[in-house]
Amino acid sequence: MERLDILDSTLRDGSQGENISFSVNDKLNIARLLDGLGVAYIEAGNPASNPKDREFFEKAAGLFLRHARLVAFGSTRKPHAAAEEDEGLAALLAAGVETAAIFGKASAFHVERVLRTSREENLRMVEDSVRFLKARGLAVFFDAEHFFDGYRQDRDYAMAVLQTARRAGADCLVLCDTNGGTLPGEIRDTVQAVRAAVEGNLGIHCHNDAGCAEANTILAVQAGASQVQGTLLGFGERCGNANLSTLIPSLQLKLGYRCIPPENMAGLTRCVRAVGEAANVVPDNGMPYVGRSAFAHKGGMHIDGVMKVPASFEHIDPAAVGNSRSLLISEVAGRAAVSQALGAAAAGSDPGTQELVQLIKEQEHQGYQYEYAAASLKLLAARRREDFRPFFRVVYSRTLGEQLGGGEGLVNGSSAIVKIRAGDDFEVCGAEGEGPVHALDRALRQAVGKFYPSVAKSRLTDYKVRVIDPQDATAAKVRVLVETTDGRDVWTTVGVSRDIIQASLQACVDALEYELWKEAQG
Amino acid sequence: MERLDILDSTLRDGSQGENISFSVNDKLNIARLLDGLGVAYIEAGNPASNPKDREFFEKAAGLFLRHARLVAFGSTRKPHAAAEEDEGLAALLAAGVETAAIFGKASAFHVERVLRTSREENLRMVEDSVRFLKARGLAVFFDAEHFFDGYRQDRDYAMAVLQTARRAGADCLVLCDTNGGTLPGEIRDTVQAVRAAVEGNLGIHCHNDAGCAEANTILAVQAGASQVQGTLLGFGERCGNANLSTLIPSLQLKLGYRCIPPENMAGLTRCVRAVGEAANVVPDNGMPYVGRSAFAHKGGMHIDGVMKVPASFEHIDPAAVGNSRSLLISEVAGRAAVSQALGAAAAGSDPGTQELVQLIKEQEHQGYQYEYAAASLKLLAARRREDFRPFFRVVYSRTLGEQLGGGEGLVNGSSAIVKIRAGDDFEVCGAEGEGPVHALDRALRQAVGKFYPSVAKSRLTDYKVRVIDPQDATAAKVRVLVETTDGRDVWTTVGVSRDIIQASLQACVDALEYELWKEAQG
Repeated sequence: MERLDILDSTLRDGSQGENISFSVNDKLNIARLLDGLGVAYIEAGNPASNPKDREFFEKAAGLFLRHARLVAFGSTRKPHAAAEEDEGLAALLAAGVETAAIFGKASAFHVERVLRTSREENLRMVEDSVRFLKARGLAVFFDAEHFFDGYRQDRDYAMAVLQTARRAGADCLVLCDTNGGTLPGEIRDTVQAVRAAVEGNLGIHCHNDAGCAEANTILAVQAGASQVQGTLLGFGERCGNANLSTLIPSLQLKLGYRCIPPENMAGLTRCVRAVGEAANVVPDNGMPYVGRSAFAHKGGMHIDGVMKVPASFEHIDPAAVGNSRSLLISEVAGRAAVSQALGAAAAGSDPGTQELVQLIKEQEHQGYQYEYAAASLKLLAARRREDFRPFFRVVYSRTLGEQLGGGEGLVNGSSAIVKIRAGDDFEVCGAEGEGPVHALDRALRQAVGKFYPSVAKSRLTDYKVRVIDPQDATAAKVRVLVETTDGRDVWTTVGVSRDIIQASLQACVDALEYELWKEAQG
Repeated sequence: MERLDILDSTLRDGSQGENISFSVNDKLNIARLLDGLGVAYIEAGNPASNPKDREFFEKAAGLFLRHARLVAFGSTRKPHAAAEEDEGLAALLAAGVETAAIFGKASAFHVERVLRTSREENLRMVEDSVRFLKARGLAVFFDAEHFFDGYRQDRDYAMAVLQTARRAGADCLVLCDTNGGTLPGEIRDTVQAVRAAVEGNLGIHCHNDAGCAEANTILAVQAGASQVQGTLLGFGERCGNANLSTLIPSLQLKLGYRCIPPENMAGLTRCVRAVGEAANVVPDNGMPYVGRSAFAHKGGMHIDGVMKVPASFEHIDPAAVGNSRSLLISEVAGRAAVSQALGAAAAGSDPGTQELVQLIKEQEHQGYQYEYAAASLKLLAARRREDFRPFFRVVYSRTLGEQLGGGEGLVNGSSAIVKIRAGDDFEVCGAEGEGPVHALDRALRQAVGKFYPSVAKSRLTDYKVRVIDPQDATAAKVRVLVETTDGRDVWTTVGVSRDIIQASLQACVDALEYELWKEAQG
């Protein structure tokens, strides 16, 4: 099994993504997660440009990484100056790591127009900087910035930059598609040409500006690159970097390269979600392999096929990457799919299943959508059973909203009062909130909590509103989806009404009732 | 310039995406937008499986498309039955289109294990179905489902399926990577082999389960496919279909194929955002070419480079696809765009424009979005002028919502009371409604109508809610867009608040004030 070195740059290039901002603690947490996954290198920051990154490297000694080596990132020395006096190179030494990555321009256009120095001086900058770090015992990765654009514009100069870095002792020459616009055929041909001309390790660093970052990386590996750079969730400047959570399974499970220890592959999905959590970013549902929808089947034909033979509509077994299959129940679903979605409790042979399918179709016609609200679907089925006893009922709720005009804007206040019944007992609670829905959720939780203190554990984590018949304007039906978590499980519930408050109340009631019902099932 | 036929399947395969649900009206709107962009084909639905799609095709006659042809989607006939008696094929004829796309299994494994019929019968199904439709005058695209998996497993059978469809008269053989897991090298080699063995048009249909949908499509085109299938925003089953908003510029601007009329390319970003709006989906910021972050520069080095030479860190000129560099929005692009949005009244030379740009940026930071709410933007500008006099002010509004529990469900009633001031006069009105927003809109209109009877002419025609920070759950900010018409003009206004009632009130107030202001302008 040919081995590839995975270099994750979530903490460096990833932090250039819009809306991404890591504290030092976030960075330490993410480094631990990446190490647990088993990547070879973690590019953790630029100590010269950023005090936060310097602090990270100071604290990183306490990380005790098992698999990964930390890499500090910087650049070649300044033009017409000595490497020995360069602050950036000094900062790399001070970071206390064994490996440094430095970028240098591989494009003559960039040397002349952006760096504004001579081609020869740029070569000397590359040579001096690599030699300086090598002489002090570091492993050096040379990131050939704008390599593919440079190669297209002036092949000889781009190759001269690579040859210079290699001669100076660079351990890996990383070919960077910095602007991310190179298409697959050109990447493959260029890496093949470089491989034929240069000895030693090559790396590949792609961006996604033409949507080809992962494909380009795979083609570069097949053409001879052995170091793969990217970020675990694809974070990065503009459209992001090559997504390692896509690349690792493609390269390892499909093409037979070894990227991480095989026993860690089933932890990939969990690792992605944990890094997302640490970065305060919700991973995109459609992300290959690890996204929530990556093995979610909706079309009736697809659901039918997957139930006969899972491999029929799945390119890999979702368990191989720690993900799972989900069947989205929509109006096109059949009886078998409903049984499967509800679990063993409602076997396909259950004569009630057909009625349930009918009920679901009627509800969907009313505007409900269960494909994303499995908890409401399970409750719908459970409530039809004779032995089902509701945990509580809402007797009434009242919301009061006030918007007082004054001066330039409006100030607002909302409050809600909810009365519930559980068995023969009643409870009334009131609360204020940012708006009527917020107030209502608070009041409802207080009231239910009087009977069932365990609901204090859970909290709402997502709230979505969809207007179903927008052309009826403010009298249109709305569908509300609410996501709730108790820290261990996450469940989604749905409500539909022409009144947004009522739709929200339904979804919130389902969220609490599902939690109680789930606990009662043990 | 070699021509490619773009087939957009947003309305068919795209509707299989999680959280995607189109009304018939949404579908008609999206078809208009795709036609305006200039794609060759719009695959609009499966009339056999879905009454909604049948209704779409009935209404589609009124669309008067200029560029695009509508395609109805279905499958080969059922095993061991006559094409003449097949309901699916009959539904394709009934759809009244000139072009049908039918899928058939190209994988022996699928024929035997999922379809559960013989290899020979499957070939007959393909042959009969294509002949049936061709004999009735339709152009037929044959979607060879699971082609790449089938070719890997049993090359001869996969090729026999293609040859059968071609012999029966299929106008295009579409090679489908249905499970989306095929990697670029294999796609290229397989399409090359098919191209060498089969005459006539080939198409390519990729899914993104290994993150390679766009790269695979490009490699297939370079190997000889001339029909490109995908969805404009990448919507689709699981990880989605090949993203046409990425492919069209890559193929046309970089590789020189003609996908859409060149003069429409600068409308690409606007078209993507409008389709997203119609689908109630926020386009991913990181989407290549058209995403909000696609030309957003964050790294200091990158900003420095772009300011010296824009091309240094941009793979194309963002204006070519109607996108913009976010770095410069506060200067050139922003100012010009604002002037344009406001019309001649605020020429770019107006010294106040720069301050207005700053105000817009602050408002957008708060969650406002003026791209679709030009009426609110015009009011924002008008209100800054010294001679602007507000037509009315809301002194306060109160809404009362009641949900009474009883029996199986909940019944509700909402009412609102609004007090406004116009000049030195006050007016208080109350109204009931389907929900608090509906009641509020009615009460507000009554009150304003006492002073300005002309507002009786207008009515709300669309109401959209978007949760901006979904992770704050019910305390999240919401953005409300309201569309109003007086029968001649249509205008859209926006409101933002943590309180959905207040956000709605803002948008409704703007809607009425814009109407009055517009009338006063003459």
